[in-house]
Amino acid sequence: MRAVDIIARKRDGLALSAEEIDFFVQGFTRGKIPDYQVSAWLMAILLRGMDRQETIDLTMSMVRSGEELKLEDIAPFVADKHSTGGVGDKTTLVVAPLVAATGIRVGKMSGRGLGFTGGTLDKLESIPGYRSDLTVSEFRSQLKSVGIVVTGQSADLAPADGKLYALRDVTATVQSLPLIASSIMSKKIAAGANGIVLDVKVGHGAFMQTDREGQDLASLMVYIGRKLGRRVRAIISDMSQPLGLAVGNALELREALDTLNSRGPADFRHHCLTVASQLLLLAGHTQDAGEGQTELAALLDNGQALAKFREWISAQGGDIVYIDNPERLPAARYVREISAPRSGYVAALNAREVGLTSMLLGGGRAKKGDRIDHAVGIVLGAKIGDEVAEGQTLLTIHANDEAKLAGAKQRLLAAYEWSNEPVGPPPLLHTIVS
Amino acid sequence: MRAVDIIARKRDGLALSAEEIDFFVQGFTRGKIPDYQVSAWLMAILLRGMDRQETIDLTMSMVRSGEELKLEDIAPFVADKHSTGGVGDKTTLVVAPLVAATGIRVGKMSGRGLGFTGGTLDKLESIPGYRSDLTVSEFRSQLKSVGIVVTGQSADLAPADGKLYALRDVTATVQSLPLIASSIMSKKIAAGANGIVLDVKVGHGAFMQTDREGQDLASLMVYIGRKLGRRVRAIISDMSQPLGLAVGNALELREALDTLNSRGPADFRHHCLTVASQLLLLAGHTQDAGEGQTELAALLDNGQALAKFREWISAQGGDIVYIDNPERLPAARYVREISAPRSGYVAALNAREVGLTSMLLGGGRAKKGDRIDHAVGIVLGAKIGDEVAEGQTLLTIHANDEAKLAGAKQRLLAAYEWSNEPVGPPPLLHTIVS
Repeated sequence: MRAVDIIARKRDGLALSAEEIDFFVQGFTRGKIPDYQVSAWLMAILLRGMDRQETIDLTMSMVRSGEELKLEDIAPFVADKHSTGGVGDKTTLVVAPLVAATGIRVGKMSGRGLGFTGGTLDKLESIPGYRSDLTVSEFRSQLKSVGIVVTGQSADLAPADGKLYALRDVTATVQSLPLIASSIMSKKIAAGANGIVLDVKVGHGAFMQTDREGQDLASLMVYIGRKLGRRVRAIISDMSQPLGLAVGNALELREALDTLNSRGPADFRHHCLTVASQLLLLAGHTQDAGEGQTELAALLDNGQALAKFREWISAQGGDIVYIDNPERLPAARYVREISAPRSGYVAALNAREVGLTSMLLGGGRAKKGDRIDHAVGIVLGAKIGDEVAEGQTLLTIHANDEAKLAGAKQRLLAAYEWSNEPVGPPPLLHTIVS
Repeated sequence: MRAVDIIARKRDGLALSAEEIDFFVQGFTRGKIPDYQVSAWLMAILLRGMDRQETIDLTMSMVRSGEELKLEDIAPFVADKHSTGGVGDKTTLVVAPLVAATGIRVGKMSGRGLGFTGGTLDKLESIPGYRSDLTVSEFRSQLKSVGIVVTGQSADLAPADGKLYALRDVTATVQSLPLIASSIMSKKIAAGANGIVLDVKVGHGAFMQTDREGQDLASLMVYIGRKLGRRVRAIISDMSQPLGLAVGNALELREALDTLNSRGPADFRHHCLTVASQLLLLAGHTQDAGEGQTELAALLDNGQALAKFREWISAQGGDIVYIDNPERLPAARYVREISAPRSGYVAALNAREVGLTSMLLGGGRAKKGDRIDHAVGIVLGAKIGDEVAEGQTLLTIHANDEAKLAGAKQRLLAAYEWSNEPVGPPPLLHTIVS
């Protein structure tokens, strides 16, 4: 088998065999196939596509490139969730302890933020002491003893995916449905959970711009997961504007704590209940999503989800003092309220622009490895559909640099569009793919 | 400007600007853009195409990557020809001195054989002493004093092309019309000739399999050449079976000498007159192809083309003794006549198989840099349309290894197809694109 012949077959639009795909993936992972052949192959895949069987074969090949966790000895069912990434998406911080509070085990490996999107680990690391570098053995042990664990992706799991992603990033081959789906699913499969809810975001602040793209990705990932023996559901949810009101690491953590204290924004609470109720269905814990939401809402309102959150953070080395006194979390030097420049209804609020602004304030990364400032970010005072009077507080900027604050103000005001007529808010949940 | 953005534009099917193309070509040549980005870009070009302006811009960018010869001070018109490659194609050996015998200057940089195709330099190097590594200054000086020069491609001319071709070869991105056309034309433009006849081969023994592909390539190259201020014509000629009867380096040289002595095979002589007469038209030497052919045929028949050949070879260090006594050229140890296995008409004779057999005998290269055996090869005794009686000599194999000889016999017999009914020979010349 020669790499150049496999590239030629994909270039010509032919379907590759499992052996051909594996030859490429393992060869690249072990340094036997050079990156210039892999990038040509990736571009051919992006432009010629892959059928569902090829995508499954690619996923499994990436799983086999490293270690594969088996969690059956810990519990018959372990829940995981994955978001395709967005702005203000602190869902895991609430859903993980909320589901764990029902007794279902939750074991998740998370990522970091890049560009306009935030990452769960960065938000958790706003809590002094929190460790996101657990070993596989620590992951297993905490999953067993505490019932909930959220750590960074282990380098031993699906190493091919990390190597391929780094190459895709610099060769304009990120935006390919089979490559995105196999990348996500290989990490999920390797991490061992048998029930997975996929939160596919669509809109300005997401990688998928349209409902159609989101649904295609969701149904492909659900298909892959099922074929590989997992219970999987996907929801398509709105990311035209940020989720909730807070964008920025410590600010989002505080909003998650508010939600666990039954005080958070209604849209974010509703979204968390939707995601969590799907995990309850996969676990066979409930037979009906409505029933599940009632149970889950009670766990938010009676403090049990918050108790599980404290238990989790403490187990991972986080200082509980910050959970009980969120005002002690990292705070920015400048907290500036920005007034609405006019009266009217908010017609649009570009999530990507808000995410980029948070990044430019220092809360995100322009490239992998950049240091971030946990304190900075934005708290929105009005979202799509809200009626605002001129001079009323439209949003609050948390910054550690005056010049960046001024730039952020300009950018955020431009992210808003206005209407004189009432505007309805966008639907939060678009579809459920099951 | 960022390489990844330019890849993305081509991936999305957009036309690139001259600046974007130049950024890529010069960046790669100078080692500033890594090969993995270039190979993704090449695959995007192969699958998305390039329009004519982009192809011209790519050609000029490759020309600008190195030195560009200016020959106006030597002569107002310098002729060049290029064949896209085939089997038994020793046309340059006859056409160059034939055209030079009319007084038109001929300055050409040639290539070496690879795979099933032969190369002009390899054939010339059958002559002991022949130098194909002239410097640019020697090239200019011989063009002026002798009026004819044929040497290897200078590494200083269009270096981007060589670097890109090496990458295309291992990333399945060779077969792209704009990439092929710009590769050929960049070398021709950089080498300075202002009149170029392109001999585009089609059929089993060529890179272009169909007339349609050949015509597309020919018309694109003619368009590029004209836009860049050159006089260019292309002919589409047959390569379903080998050209002439001899395949192999010294064997082809002997056939060229026969042709210069008015004794060569009729098809090859006719092909040489066609190509040479097109160069006479480009030079303004004649106004009519028929008139040119009459003049050229006379130069073959009166020995003046041969005299020019001797002058040329001698100027480049070749030992004239071998020209005057071709029996002293490298000869193989085994010369085996193979009889026709049946009576009938030759219906097909796969040129690619004949070329590969010559390579396997040692006369060609499986990969760049392989050493070759100038003595070995094949002389055909019958071509398409010929009537053959069982037991009559079908072909002669020249080999230096008994085992290879046996393998060659099997392979060559399988390259023939037979008919009981008379078969017409394929037309030698398909079209002229002017």
